[in-house]
Amino acid sequence: MRDLSNDTRLLSLNAATVRQRWDLKQIIDGCARHGIGGIAPWRDQIAECGLDEAAKRIRHAGLRVSGVCRGGMFPAIDSEGRKKNIEDNIRAIDEAVALAAECLVLVVGGLPDGSRDLSDAHCQIEDGIANVLDHARANAMPLAIEPLHPMYAADRACVNTLKHALDICDRLGEGIGVAIDVYHVWWDPDLEVQIARAGRGGRILAFHVCDWLVPTTDMLLDRGMMGDGIIDIRKIRNWVETAGFDGQCEVEIFSAENWWKRNPDEVLRTCIERHQSVV
Amino acid sequence: MRDLSNDTRLLSLNAATVRQRWDLKQIIDGCARHGIGGIAPWRDQIAECGLDEAAKRIRHAGLRVSGVCRGGMFPAIDSEGRKKNIEDNIRAIDEAVALAAECLVLVVGGLPDGSRDLSDAHCQIEDGIANVLDHARANAMPLAIEPLHPMYAADRACVNTLKHALDICDRLGEGIGVAIDVYHVWWDPDLEVQIARAGRGGRILAFHVCDWLVPTTDMLLDRGMMGDGIIDIRKIRNWVETAGFDGQCEVEIFSAENWWKRNPDEVLRTCIERHQSVV
Repeated sequence: MRDLSNDTRLLSLNAATVRQRWDLKQIIDGCARHGIGGIAPWRDQIAECGLDEAAKRIRHAGLRVSGVCRGGMFPAIDSEGRKKNIEDNIRAIDEAVALAAECLVLVVGGLPDGSRDLSDAHCQIEDGIANVLDHARANAMPLAIEPLHPMYAADRACVNTLKHALDICDRLGEGIGVAIDVYHVWWDPDLEVQIARAGRGGRILAFHVCDWLVPTTDMLLDRGMMGDGIIDIRKIRNWVETAGFDGQCEVEIFSAENWWKRNPDEVLRTCIERHQSVV
Repeated sequence: MRDLSNDTRLLSLNAATVRQRWDLKQIIDGCARHGIGGIAPWRDQIAECGLDEAAKRIRHAGLRVSGVCRGGMFPAIDSEGRKKNIEDNIRAIDEAVALAAECLVLVVGGLPDGSRDLSDAHCQIEDGIANVLDHARANAMPLAIEPLHPMYAADRACVNTLKHALDICDRLGEGIGVAIDVYHVWWDPDLEVQIARAGRGGRILAFHVCDWLVPTTDMLLDRGMMGDGIIDIRKIRNWVETAGFDGQCEVEIFSAENWWKRNPDEVLRTCIERHQSVV
């Protein structure tokens, strides 16, 4: 297991973590100033900054791009909607390529409006990924399915376990893997086994950290800083690294009432401190 | 699959559904008045009414007791705490026996205060159940492990899939099965397979219904009435009945801002209508 106790270069900052008070340019500058080694920007932030400008600034700051957030959201109520979603994923792949990202994270989507057909949504997701995979392969951009916590199954992503994500990877072949976020998967009794399975195919493309707070007061925007909750993050990092993952640990915290309100420089200092002591 | 379109006798009312405005005596009377065939009382409601009085009234009303809520909550920070929890489960078994309940539902408990050791909590749960199982067997009271939604893993129950619950059942042997609540398990891609597995051992002891609302505004108290959300309840009931379950469909709705505020007679009428049209 890697020693992170003095590290900042294996830390990547998901740009959502300070998005309320800094724009992407400020986040890039902040990462550089604090010695943080990577960044994971969101597409709306990239669009606001301009793709070329964002790519230039990230390169100039010497940051790795641990992932681009996000592709996915494949299911739709009709074929026109599904086609639009696929086109949007093609653009997302191109943006990830322009940023030299290590992967494009896929939040695959939930049930289309008005649907109760979970199996159909699963099929639409797999079809959608299959439809963009050739473009991803041709551009050497790995796609990372991120299984989300089951509480997001209806409206964000109905791939909710690492096993399900890997089953899809097995069926689709090369060019696709997984993003493992401790927040989404920590509860899974099958986690250690599935992480080892993911490692055998070299399919762990990203590792995201934050913490599960008790109590959690909001289903989306109450994630905790590493160490403030109940996830044994180091145990999971050990499993992930034992399985061969050697990328960055990406901090991704949605926290409307706490971290999003704080001074972003303080947030970055805390991320570094917890990366070194807790992750 | 059973035809419920004119049925009220295969409907059971979990007494939490109207607990804010009626006490247990009123709920028993309400069920009888509406022709509802069963009830599932909570232990605090039983205590308030008095165990003998509750048993007498339920019997007099001709209600089946589809389950008693609840035993479980086994993990604790020290052996003294675990011992107390086991003693409390013994009392819960005795109460369920006194009420001639069809099972005692187990909400197994989450991480003890301050713990991040999920594996240890799993062990404590299995040990705890093993410690009360002889008493349950001797009194012919089936124990029903209820896998809860993974969003409750930290603080309520860290058995979160039907597979995990059945694995525990397999290890512990006779006298134990599962309570399947659509709210907790609807998202699971392995659900159909695991329901069939549960059926092979005759281990489906209870079937609970409500609905998952989009959006869900509270992690605990925003469950929906059947038909108001996105769960394909009838599909799951078909799986459960195909697996051999022939018990009642128990409606269990925690809804602080909607159903708990309404006239309980209206709530019961709606439960019956949705039981016949949606479940």
